[in-house]
Amino acid sequence: MNTKVFEKSVSNSKYDQNQVSNDESNVTKTYLQSSQLVKAHTTVEKVSFDLSAYLSKQQVLVEAALEQSIYVVYPEKIYESMRYSLLAGGKRLRPILCIASCELCGGTVEMAMPTACALEMFHTASLIHDDLPAMDNDDYRRGKLTNHKVYGEDTAILAGDGLLAYAFKFVVEKTNKVPAERLLQVVDQLSYAIGAGGLVGGQIVDLASEKLHNIDIETLNFIHRHKTGVLLQASVVSGAILAGANDEALQPLSRYAHNIGLAFQIIDDVLDITATTEELGKTAGKDLLAQKATYPSLLGIEESKLQAQELIDEAKAELASFGEKAIPLMAIADYIIARTH
Amino acid sequence: MNTKVFEKSVSNSKYDQNQVSNDESNVTKTYLQSSQLVKAHTTVEKVSFDLSAYLSKQQVLVEAALEQSIYVVYPEKIYESMRYSLLAGGKRLRPILCIASCELCGGTVEMAMPTACALEMFHTASLIHDDLPAMDNDDYRRGKLTNHKVYGEDTAILAGDGLLAYAFKFVVEKTNKVPAERLLQVVDQLSYAIGAGGLVGGQIVDLASEKLHNIDIETLNFIHRHKTGVLLQASVVSGAILAGANDEALQPLSRYAHNIGLAFQIIDDVLDITATTEELGKTAGKDLLAQKATYPSLLGIEESKLQAQELIDEAKAELASFGEKAIPLMAIADYIIARTH
Repeated sequence: MNTKVFEKSVSNSKYDQNQVSNDESNVTKTYLQSSQLVKAHTTVEKVSFDLSAYLSKQQVLVEAALEQSIYVVYPEKIYESMRYSLLAGGKRLRPILCIASCELCGGTVEMAMPTACALEMFHTASLIHDDLPAMDNDDYRRGKLTNHKVYGEDTAILAGDGLLAYAFKFVVEKTNKVPAERLLQVVDQLSYAIGAGGLVGGQIVDLASEKLHNIDIETLNFIHRHKTGVLLQASVVSGAILAGANDEALQPLSRYAHNIGLAFQIIDDVLDITATTEELGKTAGKDLLAQKATYPSLLGIEESKLQAQELIDEAKAELASFGEKAIPLMAIADYIIARTH
Repeated sequence: MNTKVFEKSVSNSKYDQNQVSNDESNVTKTYLQSSQLVKAHTTVEKVSFDLSAYLSKQQVLVEAALEQSIYVVYPEKIYESMRYSLLAGGKRLRPILCIASCELCGGTVEMAMPTACALEMFHTASLIHDDLPAMDNDDYRRGKLTNHKVYGEDTAILAGDGLLAYAFKFVVEKTNKVPAERLLQVVDQLSYAIGAGGLVGGQIVDLASEKLHNIDIETLNFIHRHKTGVLLQASVVSGAILAGANDEALQPLSRYAHNIGLAFQIIDDVLDITATTEELGKTAGKDLLAQKATYPSLLGIEESKLQAQELIDEAKAELASFGEKAIPLMAIADYIIARTH
C-alpha cells in the first residue's frame, strides 16, 4: 500500500520552502518574494505581511456581505434557519480564498463577493445536510446546536436545499461588471464542486467507509479530495475566472488549491485528536470513537503533519510566478497548517 | 373568507372557451385558431391536433435525453440512486412545457432540451426530499418504491442534492447556440423556482399546515403556487427565454403557466379523492386520511373542478395572440384538467 498521501507534483524546486516556520503564521511574517528568487536568482526582497490582520479584515467584509445576503420574509422559518447556519461564524476560508484569488488576477473584492458568499452558502448547505441524523448525526457545529436540533429535520433538509438554490441566484443577480461568459464558467465550476463529482460524491464514499475499518489511503484521499478539496479549488479558480484569468494562471492556482485542500483535511484529522471540543466548536475525538479511518490512524500523527507540510510547501511553490501579489494566498496556505481549530 | 381560488386576471374574453370539452383531451381534437377569431372576427380556421401523439412523441424525446444525461461511474451508488428516481417515468410535464414554449417563440428542441432535462432533475430532487421520513414519509412514487426505501435516507438526501447541483451544470455545459446572457437568465429563473421563493417555500408552509386543520384558501394557494406553480412557470418562461422571447411574449406565457399550475394542483387534490392508488402511482386518499386541507375539502369536488376549468380557460386565453403556434400549449392546458393520474 502506498502510504504517501499524494503524488509529488511537478513543482518549482527553486522556491525556498523554508522561508517561514509554521508556528508563526498568525503573526506578522517576513516573506521572501519567490518570483524574485526564481527569476532573478540575485535579489531577495523582503515583504512584511500581517496574516492575522488580513484574515480579520476579510472576515469582516465577508460577514457583512453574508449578513445582507438573506432577508427574513414569509415563510419566516425557512429564512431564519438558512440564516442561522449561514451566520454561525466559521473561518470563511472559501470566500477569503475566492477574493484573494480574484485580486491576485487583477480583479476586485466587489467582483468576487457574490461568488464568495455563494461558496459559503454551499459549504453551509453541505454541513447542514451532513449533520442530519440520517448522515453524521451531529448535535454541534461551530459551537452552536446544529440546524436540525434547532429547527427540526424537515426544515434542516429544506434549509440546505434553499441555500443551494439561492447561492446560484445570488451569483447571477448580484455580480456586476463581469461578462456573462465568465459568470457561466463560475456557475459551471460551482455546480460541479457541490454535486456528485464533488461534495456529494465525497460524502457518499465517507458514509460507506464508516462501516468499514480498513479503508486504504486512496479511498481516504478520494473522500477528502471530494468533500473538501473540490470546493476549495472552485473557490480559488472561480475568483480567478471572475477576474478574467487565462489558463496559464488558472492551472497553478488550481494545483495550489488542490494541495491546500488535502493539507486542510489532514490537519482536520490531526486536530480531531489533539484539540479540545471547545477549540474546535464541534465534538472532538469523534473519529477515534467511531474508529474512523483518518490520516493519523493510517500514517500516525507526526507523519500526517509532515505530509501536510509538504503539501503546503508545494502549494506555495505553485504561486512562485505570481510574485508579491500571491503573498495573501501563500500566507493562507501557512495558516491552514498552523491553525488550532 | 374568499372561496374563490384565484383573482380573475384580465383576459381576452373573445377567445372561445367552449371549443373543446375536457373529456376529449387525449384524442385528436379540433382547435379554433383563437388569433384568427380575435383579430379578424371573420374567418374561423379549423386545425387538427393530436395531443396524445404529441405528448408521446415529446415524452420519448425527453426520456432519451434523460437516459443519456447521467452516467454511472465511481462512486456508483450515488449515480444509480439519482438515475433511479430521474428515470422512474412520470408525465415529463415540465420538460414538455419548456420545449413547447421554446418552439412557440421560434426556438428549437435542441436549444431547450438541456433546460428541459434540468427541470425534471429539479422536480425529481424535490420529490426525493419531500418523500423522506422527516417530511411526507412516502413509500411509493410513480408506482415504485421511493428513493430512500431503496437506497437509504442518507443516499436519498445526497441524491436530491446531487440532482440539484447537476441540473445547473447540465444547463450550462449542454446548451448550444444560446447567448450567455440568456443562459444566465435561465439559471436565475431556475434557482428562484427551486429555492425558498419557490419549491422550498411551498413545502415549508405545507409541512406547517399539516399540523393545523383549519388553514384558509390563501394559505393553500400559497403552498401550491410555490410547490407547483413556480417551477411550471419557470419551465414555460425558461423555454421562451432560450428562444430569445421579449417581455411582450414572456408576460402572457408567465400568466398562462401560473394558471395551469394552480389548476394542476386543484386536479391533483381532486384525484387524490377520486382516483385509485394504481392510477396515481402513489398512495391515493392520503390527504383525506391526514385530514389535510385541500381544494376539495375547502370548496367541494364539483366547485374545485369548476374553478380548475376556469383557470384553464384563462390560461388558454392568454395564448390568443400567438395564433396557431400556441396549440400545443393550449392542448397541454386541456390535458392538465382532463388527466386521470
